Amino acid sequence: MTQDSDSKQAGERSVSMDKLVALCARRGFVFPSSEIYGGINGFWDYGPLGVELKNNLKALWWQRVVRERDDVVGVDSSIIAHPRTWEASGHVDHFSDPMVDCRACKKRFRADQLDDAGRCSSREGSSEHDFTEPRNFNLMLQTQIGASEDATTAAHLRPETCQSLFTDFKRVREASRQKIPFGIAQIGKAFRNEITPRNFTFRSREFEQAEMEFFCHPSEREKWFEYWRAERLQFHRDIGLRESHVRNRTHDEDELAHYARAAVDVDYRFPFDWQEIEGVHDRGDWDLSRHGEFSGKDLGVTDEVTKEHYNPVVIETSMGVDRTCLALLADAYHEESLEGGETRTVLHFHPAVAPVKAAVLPLSKKLAEGARRLEGDLRRHFNCFYDESGNIGRRYRRQDEAGTPFCLTWDFDSQEDGRVTVRERDSMEQERVPVEGIVAYLRERLEVGL
Amino acid sequence: MTQDSDSKQAGERSVSMDKLVALCARRGFVFPSSEIYGGINGFWDYGPLGVELKNNLKALWWQRVVRERDDVVGVDSSIIAHPRTWEASGHVDHFSDPMVDCRACKKRFRADQLDDAGRCSSREGSSEHDFTEPRNFNLMLQTQIGASEDATTAAHLRPETCQSLFTDFKRVREASRQKIPFGIAQIGKAFRNEITPRNFTFRSREFEQAEMEFFCHPSEREKWFEYWRAERLQFHRDIGLRESHVRNRTHDEDELAHYARAAVDVDYRFPFDWQEIEGVHDRGDWDLSRHGEFSGKDLGVTDEVTKEHYNPVVIETSMGVDRTCLALLADAYHEESLEGGETRTVLHFHPAVAPVKAAVLPLSKKLAEGARRLEGDLRRHFNCFYDESGNIGRRYRRQDEAGTPFCLTWDFDSQEDGRVTVRERDSMEQERVPVEGIVAYLRERLEVGL
Repeated sequence: MTQDSDSKQAGERSVSMDKLVALCARRGFVFPSSEIYGGINGFWDYGPLGVELKNNLKALWWQRVVRERDDVVGVDSSIIAHPRTWEASGHVDHFSDPMVDCRACKKRFRADQLDDAGRCSSREGSSEHDFTEPRNFNLMLQTQIGASEDATTAAHLRPETCQSLFTDFKRVREASRQKIPFGIAQIGKAFRNEITPRNFTFRSREFEQAEMEFFCHPSEREKWFEYWRAERLQFHRDIGLRESHVRNRTHDEDELAHYARAAVDVDYRFPFDWQEIEGVHDRGDWDLSRHGEFSGKDLGVTDEVTKEHYNPVVIETSMGVDRTCLALLADAYHEESLEGGETRTVLHFHPAVAPVKAAVLPLSKKLAEGARRLEGDLRRHFNCFYDESGNIGRRYRRQDEAGTPFCLTWDFDSQEDGRVTVRERDSMEQERVPVEGIVAYLRERLEVGL
Repeated sequence: MTQDSDSKQAGERSVSMDKLVALCARRGFVFPSSEIYGGINGFWDYGPLGVELKNNLKALWWQRVVRERDDVVGVDSSIIAHPRTWEASGHVDHFSDPMVDCRACKKRFRADQLDDAGRCSSREGSSEHDFTEPRNFNLMLQTQIGASEDATTAAHLRPETCQSLFTDFKRVREASRQKIPFGIAQIGKAFRNEITPRNFTFRSREFEQAEMEFFCHPSEREKWFEYWRAERLQFHRDIGLRESHVRNRTHDEDELAHYARAAVDVDYRFPFDWQEIEGVHDRGDWDLSRHGEFSGKDLGVTDEVTKEHYNPVVIETSMGVDRTCLALLADAYHEESLEGGETRTVLHFHPAVAPVKAAVLPLSKKLAEGARRLEGDLRRHFNCFYDESGNIGRRYRRQDEAGTPFCLTWDFDSQEDGRVTVRERDSMEQERVPVEGIVAYLRERLEVGL
């Protein structure tokens, strides 16, 4: 389902990144980690509205990819894994960017981005850097595990969540009694020491992924690749991203990673550019073969009928949770001119991802008791917000800016007629609805199209 | 609500840790991270059943502590924060254990646990170690952030999730329009370089916490401390832990951490001992004062009526997510003798935490079509499992061992009479139930008491 409100379809987007970043901080969606200490480059905190948005997205993904399917199971693995994992995966050897250092200003730059290097800060009157030859700089964050100084082990924070889905493959397959084809899915944090974190939460050093590895027979790889490509594109449309802002982009052969035979991105049209929010990859049997080789364990499966023993090939779907949240925010943001010259900023979230589902507003503070009772009842079912301060128009604007789909106003008649005024965010239309049926009324409208 | 099945109340527990660990691996609840590489000490992966158990627990906590309340909001902050955070919090100076090294065998031991040190592996025929004087060993895991070698920053993986709730206090309070008293809550990963990880997932190096900091006026600290102590104890009973296995334990004054004025644990009676699964702490204004001092920012609030400006005091509730999962598993585990001399292993989970809510079992493989259709319908509402292999008794046993509350058997009459046989896990009683009303039937029984 896509949202068809006129305002949302009205031509070009109106949001700049600056405005979006400002709204996110002011309303508590996302803001810099450790802000009171000046922040830390590449790290972000989600506030009260942001965590609900992100949790809604994760729950929708889990529901769609895991719970509603009988051929995908979930796991939750540790961020720190055995160091051999990253040798087998190829990350120790290959997960690096070519970097040059400037001998004068001591700064480091990506060798393929030297046009952005600017002036050398150590050389007055000159713009010339004094670069070293390019060297590879591994992007994994390293730490030390273990108590004894002599027996500590260097370990890495995972740069992607998927590797444990391969190392746990045999255990999970046996424990869950799954047969090929089936998938293993996970949501979790990963870390990369990005040289230049940028574009708000788009490229950060700590981020969350929602990944699924689908294990199938080599003869079915193309069928499943196409299935998951279409399914994942559809997901992003179903959670409310505009059709014209989402597209598939097929990787050229020379773009493919060392493990990949085919790759298609789901790109979103961010204010700064079309950029990837999810990747669908045909990884072949690279991962199971490598982990089999490095561990000395047989990770293959035997076909019950043909008795063929083989390593399944893997179709991967890898969604950036933070990137998709950012796409949801950018897509939802709109500034609208109202009658009378007023403007409103509104986040046109799909109701299923909206952080707050309903705001309960007493028309006067004198009506707080009934409004509070209604709020208490609704809270058991939906995330709600109560607001009694300011005039009603101002309170509507606050909720528009938070993306709340419904405002329920408890007025002087509500006690007697058992009804509240329900105001819908996008159309701004109002309707009197009986309190008795309000949960069903809202539920029907919140789950639309999913 | 507590579960009153006879079997569960029948005297002493029957589980040993060995049996529980074996069941957890075999059925895919929890197993060692990187198992194919021999594991990594102190790190664990949750499998398909384990991740559903843990997600259910986290969702119940979030529902109870955040969504059902209008005075607590959630956040989701980064694992890596600005390094000053850990200076202000006291972790750089105080978060360490006194350790001794053995000069001969090069091993390291906690100075207060030398009785467990065993024999020195380097001295044949002798049990004598050659210990150094005790030195403090900081338990935080360290890493390096940043691209340039000259400009890298040492950073820590957070050893607890709560500090960002203090550093984000001002931003969150303003963005969410909350007034004192109110709380900020978070679920997330934390890391400690434990000297000796032990007792399965109880003491690990990577773990998950569910923490809430409740900010109140100093005059109300005792009231709120008592409120949260009782509320958090009740939570653990409500999710199904036996009353006789859960208790409060008040810390003596000499046990209190440097920041704490009072502390009460929620202890669970694990097979290995009574141990803490949650702590409720009166932290005073230590945290806001320290972060205010170290950041130079005023984190205080002004009372709207009295105009008093003050740093709120903090009541903290800190639940170990992995520890509570382990308590749920240990508490649920039971081996029962059945009529006819058979025994069954059953996990008596509260239905709300059970990973799988219902299993759909066709009595014969010929009945797969109808059973699959039923399973597909149910999956939209609950996590389900489909199993058509083995005789029906064996399939019941498998579900007992997974803690599945209901088995729905689709038999030769089902197609005609539109009914299935529902078999309840604890009583093993069976009932014919119309398929048409099955969702409501199950929902009523799954949400009991919550």
